[in-house]
Amino acid sequence: MAKARKPKKPDHLKRVLAALEAGDTAPVRGILAELHPADIARILEGLPPEPRATAWGQVDIQHMGEVLLELPEAVRVDLVKLMDDKALVAAARALDTDDIADLIPDLSDEVIAEILFALDKQDRQRLDAVLSYPDDTAGGLMNVDAITVRENITLEVVLRYLRRRDELPEHTNRLFVVDRSDRLAGDLKLTKLLTAEPKARVSQVMEREVVKFTALTPDKDVAAAFESYNLISAPVVDENNRLLGRITVDDVVDVIREQADRQVMAPAGLSEDQDIFAPVARSSRRRGIWLGINLVTAFIASWVIGLFEQTIQQVVALAVLMPIVASMGGNAGTQTLTLVVRGLAVGTISESNARRLLSRELMIGAVNGLVWALVVAAVAVWWYGNLVIGALIAAAMIINLAFAALSGVGIPFLVRRLGVDPALASGVILTTVTDVVGFFAFLGLATLFLI
Amino acid sequence: MAKARKPKKPDHLKRVLAALEAGDTAPVRGILAELHPADIARILEGLPPEPRATAWGQVDIQHMGEVLLELPEAVRVDLVKLMDDKALVAAARALDTDDIADLIPDLSDEVIAEILFALDKQDRQRLDAVLSYPDDTAGGLMNVDAITVRENITLEVVLRYLRRRDELPEHTNRLFVVDRSDRLAGDLKLTKLLTAEPKARVSQVMEREVVKFTALTPDKDVAAAFESYNLISAPVVDENNRLLGRITVDDVVDVIREQADRQVMAPAGLSEDQDIFAPVARSSRRRGIWLGINLVTAFIASWVIGLFEQTIQQVVALAVLMPIVASMGGNAGTQTLTLVVRGLAVGTISESNARRLLSRELMIGAVNGLVWALVVAAVAVWWYGNLVIGALIAAAMIINLAFAALSGVGIPFLVRRLGVDPALASGVILTTVTDVVGFFAFLGLATLFLI
Repeated sequence: MAKARKPKKPDHLKRVLAALEAGDTAPVRGILAELHPADIARILEGLPPEPRATAWGQVDIQHMGEVLLELPEAVRVDLVKLMDDKALVAAARALDTDDIADLIPDLSDEVIAEILFALDKQDRQRLDAVLSYPDDTAGGLMNVDAITVRENITLEVVLRYLRRRDELPEHTNRLFVVDRSDRLAGDLKLTKLLTAEPKARVSQVMEREVVKFTALTPDKDVAAAFESYNLISAPVVDENNRLLGRITVDDVVDVIREQADRQVMAPAGLSEDQDIFAPVARSSRRRGIWLGINLVTAFIASWVIGLFEQTIQQVVALAVLMPIVASMGGNAGTQTLTLVVRGLAVGTISESNARRLLSRELMIGAVNGLVWALVVAAVAVWWYGNLVIGALIAAAMIINLAFAALSGVGIPFLVRRLGVDPALASGVILTTVTDVVGFFAFLGLATLFLI
Repeated sequence: MAKARKPKKPDHLKRVLAALEAGDTAPVRGILAELHPADIARILEGLPPEPRATAWGQVDIQHMGEVLLELPEAVRVDLVKLMDDKALVAAARALDTDDIADLIPDLSDEVIAEILFALDKQDRQRLDAVLSYPDDTAGGLMNVDAITVRENITLEVVLRYLRRRDELPEHTNRLFVVDRSDRLAGDLKLTKLLTAEPKARVSQVMEREVVKFTALTPDKDVAAAFESYNLISAPVVDENNRLLGRITVDDVVDVIREQADRQVMAPAGLSEDQDIFAPVARSSRRRGIWLGINLVTAFIASWVIGLFEQTIQQVVALAVLMPIVASMGGNAGTQTLTLVVRGLAVGTISESNARRLLSRELMIGAVNGLVWALVVAAVAVWWYGNLVIGALIAAAMIINLAFAALSGVGIPFLVRRLGVDPALASGVILTTVTDVVGFFAFLGLATLFLI
């Protein structure tokens, strides 16, 4: 089948940037007015600070709240600072109550007070309910707009009840069946409601086995369940099984994206909540700390090399070849580590299969250690015409790849037990090990057998 | 607020593995029978080959199809090999037509023929429709079970029409409004259908502005749109705007997860479709290739060091300190690279803001280069009591961090222009640059000023 050519997407970022650089704000307002808040957010994220501030002034105040929600926090905080209290209150009021909760942490006490003042009692209670749970829990993720029905009424009554409402909350795909004390008994899917006999009672068509979360379930467990069970929405209950609210898949998709970003960014010491155009001073400080940590590990490796200064003095070839041993160990170890960190996150790896996994990784390390040790040895012999050097580097590589496999499996478990995110710290520790072992094995063996 | 203790989840993997190691399959069947196919898949993924094969024999044949779909392809292929044709046909027939399409690539021609033979004409046509588009396009993702209505009928008629069906397809949150030639005119949300006046016509309550995809839209664009616009389902049309099918959010979540896995696995040269217990020979070969590529870059770095053998012979301290320069460059460059690769994937970075980004990264590189160069210089002077060595290493670090910023921004653009995934190849190239520049700058300057 012929593959159709993909039409080129309009590059809004380019057009906005060009207009701003020409000092022309009128077309910017026009472009932004036609875009979805999520697309406006992406453009703002791609703009350097000054054009970004100018462009922000061109966003319709009705959309500002939604755009703010779509931005990484680092960018959101900066844009909130550009707005006066009146604008912030207006932007927040255009949002659903549940979305306001996500903005609250970035607002001043005065603005929060004004927003609360502007809400009616029911909305204020809803906001309180969501705010009382940490951000990264089911309670923090939930909406409090679930529609509930009782199980002893007929579908006809349910249909009439729904028709009396102007509209249903977004992403409503099911109603929740509760008893008189709001305890969750099951759910009634809209698709069921539409196809079942109207004379039937809710109790006859409802589903009683429902995937539900308690308010303090960590958001990553919620995401895993949505992914595994293909959910669109799911109820949140308190410890007495009383319905508190519902989580919808659009918010879960954001959690999955954040987790993914963290997995990619953490190994480089970066926050997943990143502003690519943050002030240089702020970025330099954060990244500098990471470089400092890595510098300490580099000093440790240096110190190991320093132990063998006299050996290197006598055989300079060692200095030329030693980075190969360290680098091969680092790369092989990183492969194992990447597998294990992901397996721990997904749940396919746990203490119960770690031993099996280790023996398998050691075998792979042995195979690749042998193969590439021979290649490196051959090149070393060819470069230096010295068989002993070839034998030494081969032996050092095999040793280092064994340690690499061991560290790749062991370090993530260790780091996790210390309560640290394995994605963040494992890589630095691993390369420290492979550098130290690589240099120590190669230079140590050389000192024993070559001098 | 007190944080409730999270109840410990039952470790099914551990229980299954323990039973299998004791040679006791009866409890395994019991455990697996109570789990969701997605959970069974996760357990199988976590089992070494032999226990995995035994456990697979204990899975109910009615669930086998769904379990296979939840597994990474590498594992799926192995399990399919364990099944005879009859079992495969039975497993496939328990699936929805659209899901069968995802299994087809792993089945033999005989099995496919038997499955097709067992389907009725409509299902066969549906299967053909999905199979005619590549896996990674909207057409490959879509289901062909969309319910359509005409715009001139009343909601009452729609409701009667739905009630005549036994059930609606999973994740149906809206009906699609088409004209007589199946051209898409808009959609009718179920929530709207339930709240609007039954006497109203579809044309009065339908939404005409609908996010839709053509069949060949890349799946990553579909995922981005679902994420931005918070979609549950979306229509797929052909080039004449005729409705072909619909995409549902549960399949999109899988795309997002795969993309995320690729971003994490690719920099280590791993496939996102990984079996942690693949045969050692298979894994060794794949990973060995990646180590070989890295070995080439290590040799290049070695060769650069080799150019300065005589300098090192005279000042061994250089051999001790040179890895620091290379490693700091590699770490700083990786930070920039990680940001840029992600920005390119998400769309916040493009040619239009690359120049701005580069100047910003160069500034951060300069700040951190200066700060850490001073620290490293101080340590070098303290270790060796030689001011010149301190000055040299500081200068080399500043040079290398500038190249690191340049490479971190430039390489992903370059790699992408060559049609390669920036996440895969950028890291190797970057560390080659920072190693070569680091060694060359430090040893070169030393040769000029120290000897």
